[in-house]
Order: sequence, then structure tokens, then C-alpha cells
Amino acid sequence: MTAMVTPHLFIPGPTNVPDAVRMAMNLPMEDMRSPEFPKFTLPIFEDLKKAFKMKDGRVFIFPSSGTGAWESAIENTLAVGDKVLMSRFGQFSLLWVDMAERLGLNVVLCDEEWGTGVPLEKYADILAKDTAHEIKAVFATHNETATGVSSDIAGVRKALDAAKHPAMLFVDSVSGVGSLDMRMGEWGVDCCVSGSQKGFMLPTGLGILAVSQKALDANKSLNGRMNRCFFSWEDMIKTNDQGFFPYTPATQLIRGLRTSLDLLFAEGIDNVFARHTRLASGVRAAVDAWGLKLCAKEPKWHSDTVSAILVPEGIDSANVVKTAYYRYNTSLGVGLNKVAGKVFRIGHLGALDEYMIGGVLFSVEMALKDCGVPVKLGSGTGAAAEYFVNNPVKPADKKA
Amino acid sequence: MTAMVTPHLFIPGPTNVPDAVRMAMNLPMEDMRSPEFPKFTLPIFEDLKKAFKMKDGRVFIFPSSGTGAWESAIENTLAVGDKVLMSRFGQFSLLWVDMAERLGLNVVLCDEEWGTGVPLEKYADILAKDTAHEIKAVFATHNETATGVSSDIAGVRKALDAAKHPAMLFVDSVSGVGSLDMRMGEWGVDCCVSGSQKGFMLPTGLGILAVSQKALDANKSLNGRMNRCFFSWEDMIKTNDQGFFPYTPATQLIRGLRTSLDLLFAEGIDNVFARHTRLASGVRAAVDAWGLKLCAKEPKWHSDTVSAILVPEGIDSANVVKTAYYRYNTSLGVGLNKVAGKVFRIGHLGALDEYMIGGVLFSVEMALKDCGVPVKLGSGTGAAAEYFVNNPVKPADKKA
Amino acid sequence: MTAMVTPHLFIPGPTNVPDAVRMAMNLPMEDMRSPEFPKFTLPIFEDLKKAFKMKDGRVFIFPSSGTGAWESAIENTLAVGDKVLMSRFGQFSLLWVDMAERLGLNVVLCDEEWGTGVPLEKYADILAKDTAHEIKAVFATHNETATGVSSDIAGVRKALDAAKHPAMLFVDSVSGVGSLDMRMGEWGVDCCVSGSQKGFMLPTGLGILAVSQKALDANKSLNGRMNRCFFSWEDMIKTNDQGFFPYTPATQLIRGLRTSLDLLFAEGIDNVFARHTRLASGVRAAVDAWGLKLCAKEPKWHSDTVSAILVPEGIDSANVVKTAYYRYNTSLGVGLNKVAGKVFRIGHLGALDEYMIGGVLFSVEMALKDCGVPVKLGSGTGAAAEYFVNNPVKPADKKA
Amino acid sequence: MTAMVTPHLFIPGPTNVPDAVRMAMNLPMEDMRSPEFPKFTLPIFEDLKKAFKMKDGRVFIFPSSGTGAWESAIENTLAVGDKVLMSRFGQFSLLWVDMAERLGLNVVLCDEEWGTGVPLEKYADILAKDTAHEIKAVFATHNETATGVSSDIAGVRKALDAAKHPAMLFVDSVSGVGSLDMRMGEWGVDCCVSGSQKGFMLPTGLGILAVSQKALDANKSLNGRMNRCFFSWEDMIKTNDQGFFPYTPATQLIRGLRTSLDLLFAEGIDNVFARHTRLASGVRAAVDAWGLKLCAKEPKWHSDTVSAILVPEGIDSANVVKTAYYRYNTSLGVGLNKVAGKVFRIGHLGALDEYMIGGVLFSVEMALKDCGVPVKLGSGTGAAAEYFVNNPVKPADKKA
Repeated sequence: MTAMVTPHLFIPGPTNVPDAVRMAMNLPMEDMRSPEFPKFTLPIFEDLKKAFKMKDGRVFIFPSSGTGAWESAIENTLAVGDKVLMSRFGQFSLLWVDMAERLGLNVVLCDEEWGTGVPLEKYADILAKDTAHEIKAVFATHNETATGVSSDIAGVRKALDAAKHPAMLFVDSVSGVGSLDMRMGEWGVDCCVSGSQKGFMLPTGLGILAVSQKALDANKSLNGRMNRCFFSWEDMIKTNDQGFFPYTPATQLIRGLRTSLDLLFAEGIDNVFARHTRLASGVRAAVDAWGLKLCAKEPKWHSDTVSAILVPEGIDSANVVKTAYYRYNTSLGVGLNKVAGKVFRIGHLGALDEYMIGGVLFSVEMALKDCGVPVKLGSGTGAAAEYFVNNPVKPADKKA
Repeated sequence: MTAMVTPHLFIPGPTNVPDAVRMAMNLPMEDMRSPEFPKFTLPIFEDLKKAFKMKDGRVFIFPSSGTGAWESAIENTLAVGDKVLMSRFGQFSLLWVDMAERLGLNVVLCDEEWGTGVPLEKYADILAKDTAHEIKAVFATHNETATGVSSDIAGVRKALDAAKHPAMLFVDSVSGVGSLDMRMGEWGVDCCVSGSQKGFMLPTGLGILAVSQKALDANKSLNGRMNRCFFSWEDMIKTNDQGFFPYTPATQLIRGLRTSLDLLFAEGIDNVFARHTRLASGVRAAVDAWGLKLCAKEPKWHSDTVSAILVPEGIDSANVVKTAYYRYNTSLGVGLNKVAGKVFRIGHLGALDEYMIGGVLFSVEMALKDCGVPVKLGSGTGAAAEYFVNNPVKPADKKA
Repeated sequence: MTAMVTPHLFIPGPTNVPDAVRMAMNLPMEDMRSPEFPKFTLPIFEDLKKAFKMKDGRVFIFPSSGTGAWESAIENTLAVGDKVLMSRFGQFSLLWVDMAERLGLNVVLCDEEWGTGVPLEKYADILAKDTAHEIKAVFATHNETATGVSSDIAGVRKALDAAKHPAMLFVDSVSGVGSLDMRMGEWGVDCCVSGSQKGFMLPTGLGILAVSQKALDANKSLNGRMNRCFFSWEDMIKTNDQGFFPYTPATQLIRGLRTSLDLLFAEGIDNVFARHTRLASGVRAAVDAWGLKLCAKEPKWHSDTVSAILVPEGIDSANVVKTAYYRYNTSLGVGLNKVAGKVFRIGHLGALDEYMIGGVLFSVEMALKDCGVPVKLGSGTGAAAEYFVNNPVKPADKKA
Repeated sequence: MTAMVTPHLFIPGPTNVPDAVRMAMNLPMEDMRSPEFPKFTLPIFEDLKKAFKMKDGRVFIFPSSGTGAWESAIENTLAVGDKVLMSRFGQFSLLWVDMAERLGLNVVLCDEEWGTGVPLEKYADILAKDTAHEIKAVFATHNETATGVSSDIAGVRKALDAAKHPAMLFVDSVSGVGSLDMRMGEWGVDCCVSGSQKGFMLPTGLGILAVSQKALDANKSLNGRMNRCFFSWEDMIKTNDQGFFPYTPATQLIRGLRTSLDLLFAEGIDNVFARHTRLASGVRAAVDAWGLKLCAKEPKWHSDTVSAILVPEGIDSANVVKTAYYRYNTSLGVGLNKVAGKVFRIGHLGALDEYMIGGVLFSVEMALKDCGVPVKLGSGTGAAAEYFVNNPVKPADKKA
């Protein structure tokens, strides 16, 4: 820490840690076997369920990352060789497919254009044809962080229901939950994967996995399960019910999580989602004003947590990111894999407000100009300001 | 601390605390009489002298605020009834005059229009006429925080020299030192008053007073001194030379000061000043683009640490400040006293960069619009961006 | 901060900052003129009154130290030349007398043996004889930090009442309030001086001055007051009533103070006092077991916040302190002035419990042994443990 | 955080976080793909190797716990059905065996009495007889945290060498590395498992796994490997070499790790080991003085990081732990599994000094007494003090 000003963080995770959370994590260690510990942990498990809008089931907190929670979902419910339906349209859905294959699943894959999302019609078609119900689970990436694409999870549920298909529904909502509406109960999601460092506004270090009763039942009845121990649910269930953990939990982060949840509930989680839509709309107004395009092909794919922005031919988006970083002290997301060099990303999730959107658009505008993209300076910030001014949500003279 | 995002701070002090400083102050208490303590304090005293560009003399650190350091300067060098030359052109120079009078000084006052600064010609004139050298000290406000006016301290020195006048030169540089160039040695400043919460980027709580050898001599030879104890120099000198203090020092802030000084020296203090000029230029470009005027009447008075901006007739500047605060989570400075309702202020000193200037201009633009000021959204941010892009200072692909 | 373990702090202030307070102070700066600020400050002023058990009057918070609050009390209620009754029996009562004289008061002084406290009979005598009521204020040091002596403030009130004397009663309770019972209302204290770094468990930086209505009236009616500005009450009163301050307040510490008060009230301040008595009793049991004597001559003078312990002839107490510091990482208080070399001090105030008393006695025992004092190792810790075990206050199987 | 004093932590992990580390972790999030990030991470990888005293190989940092690092070691080097040699003599060696079996290994098990350690002669015997080299790996628990037993890793190496056996050597040193000497290079250890929350003095959240070149080769040549992805080495190697990670790393903890390593190296890691031996000796002197026995059967098994202490017949050790916690604000380790109710544990690893040992012995002594164990108060603290005074290591008048 030797910088006068810490770089401004607009990657799509880790997100900015609210000061209240930072303060809550600035604490000495504690005994995770103390008789007082469950008084702290048990309410957390309950409150997490509200964040996922679950009907039944439970939430696991692993000292890991979202990737670990992915692995836990698979290892605890599926057997090697099981058939699953997946789609790939960005770096993170790609990695999820890669994991499924490495863990021995038999992936029925829909390979989609990057910039689109979960192909509902194809899914419906495949599920309808799978009358033998060989497909054990359907995977859907709620928010593809690499391309800024959100998918319609309710639509996947409809496809399953239309086909009367009993497969489980697995959702990667690492960059969704806490920022985008996730209705596990209503949408019949069985495993929903998240992590601490996005909508929960914490440092990386918790894999958060919400599972339905159906998934818990699958776990119980499973034969030929994959080898696992660290990520096993049984050990967690046995101890979590008493407020403890099978091995040392990441108490510092869980203390922070307590405050994060408090902040989310204080604002109201539906208000939090609305704020994300509002701020994302400001960013998209700026992109339009710059004459640029999003990587997301259609408005229905627009993500409210991250915008992947295409640079014009002949420009290397990596230079835009580098210029923003070194010259304007602003961290943007780079383009990954297929869209490397072609897109840069603005993460707009977590603890954010209009000022911060103004700040990042200001930095981006200058970096684009410096890199030879012919944007009019002030056009993006102006368009975003226009959007915010015309859509006021807070009183001007007292606390909202 | 229950806000998701802490309000963005653009008052002209307290300024934003750099993360490194915040981290350094997050510490347990220590024994201020331990034999190791002087190894920490003695270098601080030396390093502070670099920040003031002093030739001789010393720097006192009081657990107080800038106001306390003002009082210390007067009480230790002047007697009740002493004649002093002062000027008043804003709330803080006004309060300084008020203090001088309450402490019993005989003030020769130049009452100037708010928006101007120290009247060099009048000073020269008065000093030339004071052939009996009745004036014991000349006071100059380096940076009038209420109106965003900087004054020419070298010019005051010239006036003194031209008149061959032996009066001491007292400078209020609370919102100057560490952000604006202060050359105590070269300019022959005898008492320079500052505080922790401006250019030193710390919480409020330290009154920092730099004094020349001439001021120290005045202290020694003084008869009929004012009553004082807490702010007396003698007690400080006796103990400071051993690295200690006459009463419990504010060690937490002094630990923070250590890191602040490290940050200032790492950037290079002349680079810090240049950064302030650059960022202030961006703000002024925005003010021009909005079609508004600064309170500072002429460019020579423009302050690089704070801009006081006049709102059009019929608009209440307090509403702009309130709207920015409640709707856009941005703290601006209000208009004080004579300029209440007429100006709002953007503090742009301390740990700041282009992004932050973009952010505050974005918030201000929206707040102005909301309050009925006919600004074109994007005009201010665009003009500032234009300035920054056309005047690059950092490489785009590596650390500066 | 490069030590593996931070030195254990047992000086009589600054005291250990509770983790909750440390966390509360780890925050960004805020606008002390924001419309939300009074919602934070006004309850603090009220809650401070509870800590002082006041009936009427108000509490001032200066960005200074206890020394500054001393000065404020004098400057706002007394005139140069006023006669005051004081007593001197340790370094801090000595410094208070020194200040009174330097500020121009006419001190009627009782010079007492170090190790005793306020001489109630002498005070009664002097007051009874002062039928002309020339004495304007009576000063009493509640807790002399240098010698570990507490005085009977209720007794001073009785002496005043017996003489039907209208003088104001000034109490230095810097190392008392928040740790020792202070009943300003019941005892008719007019100015009670404290600081942030003792019973309030904060870093140094706040001078806290509680004043009665009588003192406020004295302030209003005063002619020929001392010159002052920083420490003046009038400016504070004008702004405090709206929740603001006349100059920038030390918001970081006041945020910490909020949490300190919450902790004190959560434990119950009378429980806090009882805890101090209990822990001090453990320390005194150890001193007895070591065969050493306290500087305080009689049990009635025993301070529950600090013990000054006499070393045997031929031993230099400074060596004990140095050995404890360098070899056992434990900060003790040195002997000051007349008792330099003769006593070392254990501060036992603020956020402390039995374990910590055990720890410091352990370190002291070893340091004494190393320095040639013939203590039996385990005798002091054993005696303290005996006291605690025989006087249990908390259940062994659930939260108190 | 509402306690006046945070409970004193003497469980065998998480350990006390040094203030410097706590300060270093009090930071905003950063971009783990920034071009500056490798400048921070690459030296960490190198410095970790010094902590393990490795010759070749590398260290992996997983966002997990030690349990995860166990799993990673197995999954990346062994195949389902592989034969391994293990021993079980406490809760953590028991869990390791459990994991090995659940992951599909064929465990040749030495079931030892709790209170003993790795059975060198049996190991030698089994290895000598395994002329077909069916055993692929030999597992040894360096420090069994549940019983306070250290084992002789160099001895295991000797047994392997004597048998000219090519099996890999896996060591669980979760509560060893950083506190007990670990010479991976000299002792030919192939996988050494640790975590952040013990000798590295950090919060839980990092699984730290050091592997030799031989282990890396085993990984490369392995067929029929276990399914894994999160804990796979290949992904780590690919990205670590550039200073990056295959998924979001726990940057906050890694920043803390930087400071932890700095502290360890500043003290000198061999000095750190000596300090652990010294402090453990003080604890053992106290146990003797109390007339109690350690769970560790013989001095050769004594652990320098944790002491498991047997309570007399008729006493429930859980009551001792509860009393220490609720009445004396001190967290001890409970007895686990076979020794539940029979032992309580004092963790004495990490950032500790004599004062803290004195404090915990003081609390324990009182809790024992309260629970009916006939200890003489002061006997334990006295014996420990005796040990420390008779074995001085630091000068009494200057920094060591």
C-alpha cells in the first residue's frame, strides 16, 4: 500500500468492499468452537436463504471461491458418467463445462455465439426429446461475466416444466446473486453457486452454495458418487446444524458477511437490484453515446452487473484497459479468451452509486481517446447524467 | 456506518485519508514515554521541516486543530496590545482577525472584497509608513478556504523587505501546506499554521505550527506575554528535543502522519503541488463550460485546493449542496457567511486523482441541473477530460 | 509496526482501545457540516452527561488533551488574579498548580506529602476562614496518576457546604471518569476535566470538560476574563446546540467515543467501577505478597485505576520499567519527578480483565527478580488469583 | 464485537493475528489481473519456499483451509486404489486417514495409542517388507494438534532411506510450519500441508501446500488420477508462473501473508522456533507444578505448539474450558473425540510472548481451581516465571 490513491475498482469482482464491511472484518481471531459461536452463525445461514429467495433447502459456506462451490455442487449430486445439459458462450460458462468434463460428466453441450446466453429453445428441444430422462442436471449461467450477458433462468425452468423433465437445475450466479434477482424457490433452482467477492461485497474466500431439498435428496440417494471430502455436504450438514463447521471456517469473512447481509437488507434487496439496473442503464447510455456496441447481442442479454464493450476494429482493448489503469488509476476488466483484445469490461455491481459510474465513465472516455477511439469527451458522462437526472429515485433534501 | 457507499468527500478538509494512512492508524495504543518512542518522533520533526521548506526553526505538533495552532502562534510571540497588520476577505481570514482581537492584539485591518486576497500594495504602503516599526507582525492567509483564493506570500515578503520592516510574517496555510507550495525559508515566513486534516490527509486532531528561528527568538525575549500553557512553546521545546511531549501526544495521528509524509515524499512534494494545479485546472475548465464563475475575482487569486463557485441569481447554493449530498452521495462545501447561498465549494486537495475529479463534476452537474441551473450535462466533465487528455503526465503502459 | 507482538500496555493512559472501538475508528472522513451530522453528535453530548452523572450543565469536547480541558476550565470561569485553593501531592496536581499560576491565578496552596491526597481538613479550615469568599474556586485532583492516590471529592463538597462557601469546585478526573465513580450532580462539581485516553478507552486527542450550570453562569457573568479563543465556551455553545462545532472537530475520535460509551453502558457504568475495584484489589494483593509497599500511604488513598509501587532501597525503579519493556514486552509507568527511581506504576484502568492482570503481574514479577528485588516468583500472581477465585462475579457456564 | 475485552485466544489455531498483519489486511480490494499484481505475488511464492526450507519444487496457495490442501496433495499425485502408509493417534491424523479412505486410497494403517506419534519402527518394518514398492506414499502427521504430539519427520525419512523405498513422503504440518522446524529439502518431504491460521498467523482461508519436484513429477506422469479441478495443480502452475491464479485468489489474505512472512524473517525463523520451544517449556513447567500430566506420553512427543493437558479422574475437562471462557475470558482448546472430557488444550503457537503465557496460565489455574482440581494458585505461573527468568534470551535494556 504505497499509492496516494488506491486504484478505482471496476472489474466485475472482487467488488468494492463497503466501509462498514471493511470495519467489521478488522478484528482479532475467535474460537470457532466457542459455545457463543452458534449464536452468530445460525442466523447467518437463515439470512443467506433470504438472499437466494429459497423455499426449502440450505446454504453452504465453504472457505473457497465460487469455483469451489461449482465443484461442490457437482461432486455431491452427480456420478461420474452422468449426462448433463450445458451451454457455453463466454469464458466462465466455458470453464464450467471444462470442469464438468474433467470431473467425469457426460456433457450435452450447446455451443453458442459469445454475446448470447442460455439457448432456451434448444434446451426445451433437448429436454423434450430426452424422454428417458438421461439428463440428470441442466446447467445455466445466470450472468456470464466475460461477455456481460444475463440469461433467463425462469425460462430454463419453463423449458424443464414444459418437458415434464425431472432433471435438477444448476445455476452459476457468482456475479448475479445479491445484485441480480435470484428466486431459487420460484424458479425451482436446485444448486445455485455464488462467491463472496461479487454481490456480497467481500474479499474473495467464500464459496457460497445454495441447494434445494431436491438436491439434498439427490445427495442422500446417490451411489457411485465422486470422491470428495473438503467439499462434501454431509460433513457440513452434520456440524452446520449446531452452528459449527467440519473444519476451521473463514470466520473473518463470515463476520464481514454478517455486515454485508445487514447492508443488503437495510437497502432492501429488491431496491439493490433496481439500483443495479439503474446504474447499468447509465453505463449503457454512455456506450451508446460513444457510438460503441456491447458484446451482448441483444437487449434481452444485457447484464446489469457488467458491461463488456467492443472496441472498434484496429484498436486493442487491452491498451484501453492498460491506459485506464496506469494513466487514470482505474481498474477495468480485460477481454478474455475469444474476446481478448476486442472487449473491455466495466464491472458495475456491488457497492456502487452514480458518482462512481460518473468516475469510471470519465476514466474510460479519456482512455478511449488516448487509445485512438474517436469518442467525444463528455458524451458518455453526459448521457449517463441525463439518464440519472431524468430518472430520479431519491429525495434531494433528506435521507431516502 | 450503515451506508452501502460512504459519501464522496469533496469538502476542503477534512480530506480523503489514503488507504495506507488509514491502515497505519489502525493500531493499538503505545507508551509515549517508552525509550523507543523518540526513534519514531525525532525523524518526524525533521521531515515536517521538509514539507514546510524551512531553513531554520522548528515544527510543533499540538493535539488540537489549525485554530489551536493559530492561537499558539499569537500567544507565544506577541503581547496584549501589540499592533499587527491583517487582511480579511473570507470566513477564515475573518475568524483569524476575530481571534487576534479577542486575544488582545491591536489589529490594523485591510477589509477586502471577498474573492480577492492579501492586498499587497496596501500592505506595502502601510509597512512603508510604519517607520516606527510599531507593527510587530504581518498576517497573511495563504489560502482562503471560504472563497477559494490563494494569496502571494512571496509578495508579502517583498513588501516587508522593500520597507525594511522587521515585523514577523505569520501565514495561515491550513489548507495550503502539503498541497500548495510553501517556502518558509525562501519567503521568510516566521509562523506557518497548518492542521492534519488538509494536505496532510489525516483526520482532524493535529495543529501543526512551523516557526522560524526569529519567531523562537521573539518567544524568548517576550515580556508581558499572554497567559497560556497548553499551547506554550517552552514546554514543547524542552521535551521535543528528547523526542517526547509535555503532555500525552496524539500518537495515533502522529503514526498516520509518518505514513502521510512518506506518501508525499514518495510522490515528490513538488509533484504533489503540480498534481493539485492540474486537477484544479480540470475543475476550472468545467466551471467555464457550465457558464459559471468562480468567487475568486481574478486568475491570480485562483486556489488550486478549493474552488468556490457562484450560482446564478435566484438559485440557492445551499440547495445544490444538499442535492449533491442526499441524491448523489457527494459532500460539497457550503457557502459561509457573506457568500452563504451564493457559492458552493469543491475541495480538491489531498489524495485525489482525475477519476475523482470526474466523479465530483458528474455529481455537481446533476445537482446543478436538478436545482434549475441550466448547465449542459456532460459539458463540465467533458471540458475537464479535455484538459486532462491534452495535458498528459503519466505513461499509459507503466508506473509513473 | 514491525513487532510480532505489540507491547502490552499497562501505563495509566493511554489505555487499551477495545477492538470494537478500534474498528469504529477505522473509517473514512466525513463532512462535519453535513445535515446528518447532528443526528450523530447530539446524542453523544447527552450520553456523556450520563458518564459524569450530571444534573445540569453540559459537556464540551475539545480536540486537545486533558491538559487543554484544564486550561479551558480556568480560562472560561476565572480572571487573572483570582484566588483559588489547590493542593499538590504528585506530578499531575503539581502541573495543575503550575498551569494555574502561569495563567495568572493567585493560588492558595496546600503542599502535601506525595502519597497522600486532597487534605480535607485543611481545605475545610481554609474555606471556613475565607469569610470574605475571596476564593473563587477549589481544585481537587480526583485521581493523582503519578502516585496512585484517589481523593474524596464528596468530602471536598462537604467542606464547602460546611463553610457555606460559594466557590466553584473544579475536579481533575482525567484518570478517573469512566473508571472511578464521578457524581458531578450529587457532589456539586462545577468543572470536571477528562480526556479520551483513559476511562474512555480512546486514543489521545479529546479534552472532555463537563461543566455545571453554575460554571456556565460564571462564564457568562465574568469580566476581565483571560484571553482565549480555541478553548472558549461561547463558541462551542453556539454551535454545539445545533450539533456542530466552531472549528473542525476530531470526528474520528468522536465516532470512537460513540462506541466507547456504548460499551460502558452495555456493561453498566457502576459495574465498570466495580470491575476496576476488583482488578485493583488483585494487584494490591500481589504487591502485598511481594512484600512491597504502595506509594499511597493509606488504604483510603488507594487508587483503583493505577498502583504506584515502591521498590526497595538500592533498586532503581526505572530499571524495573526498562526490563519489563525490553525483556517482557510490557509497558509500565515510570516514576515521575519526586518519585522518579523510587516507584514504578501499573495502570489498571479501561478495557481490562483478570487475564491481563495476571499477565502484567507475571511480567512485573520477572522484571523485579531480574532487577534484584527478592520476590518469590508466583507469589504475586498467586495472591491475585486467590483474590479473584474467592470473589467470583461471573457465572462459569454462560454469558454474564 | 460488543465485548469490552476480546476473549484471549489460546486455541491451537486460528492463532493471534499480529497487529501489523491485521493492519495489512485492512485494505480495499484489488484487481488480481492487473499488470502490477505479479510484482507482489512472485516474491511471495519464493519466500514461502524459505519458510518450508525447500530445495526444489513449489508452493501452492489455495483459497481453502488446510483440509483442502490435504485433499489437493492426494488428488494430484495418487490414483484411486493406491496403497499408502498412514498412522492414527489423534483427531487430526484420524481425519486424514478418513479423507484418504473416502478419496479411495488403500490405507495401510498403524493405529497408535493417542498420546504417541508416528511409529518409526513399525513404519521401517512395513517399508522394508514392501519390496514390491506397492506403497506409493507414506503419511506422517508432524504435529497432532489434538493430543499435543510432535513426530520425528527426519526419522520417517530415515526409515524410507533404510528400506531404499521410493514412496513419496506426505507431511501434515498444519500446526507445525512457521512454528516448528520443517526442513522439506533435508528431510525429503514431497508434500507438506499447511494453512494460514497457525504459524502464518493469519485468519483461516488459505490452504498452503508445498510440493517437491518428485511430487510434481508424480503429478505429471499420473494416470487414472482422481477427479478434481478446484484443487488441481496444473491450472495453478500454468498461471502462478506468471504471477496469476486460475481463479480469483484470496488477495486480502495473501497481502496479510506478505506481512507475516516479513515478521517471521525479521525475527529469523530459527529464532521463531526457539521462541516456541521456550514458551512451551514454560507451559510444561506449569503443568508439572500443578501436578498434572500431558496427554503426550513421553518428552520426545512433546509438542512446542500445543499442550494437551489431562485433568484428574472425576473432572470434566470441558468444564475447565467453559469456565476459562465464560469466567476468565480465555479461549482454550477442548478435548476431541477419544480425549473429550479428559484433556483441555493450550495452544501456544504464533505471535506469543512470555506475558501471554503468564496470562493464560493465570486463567487456567483459576479455572482449574474453580472446577475442583486441587492446584496451588501461583504454582503454575511461578514455575513458568522461574523457567523464563533462569533462561533469559533478551537484553534488559535495549531491543533484541
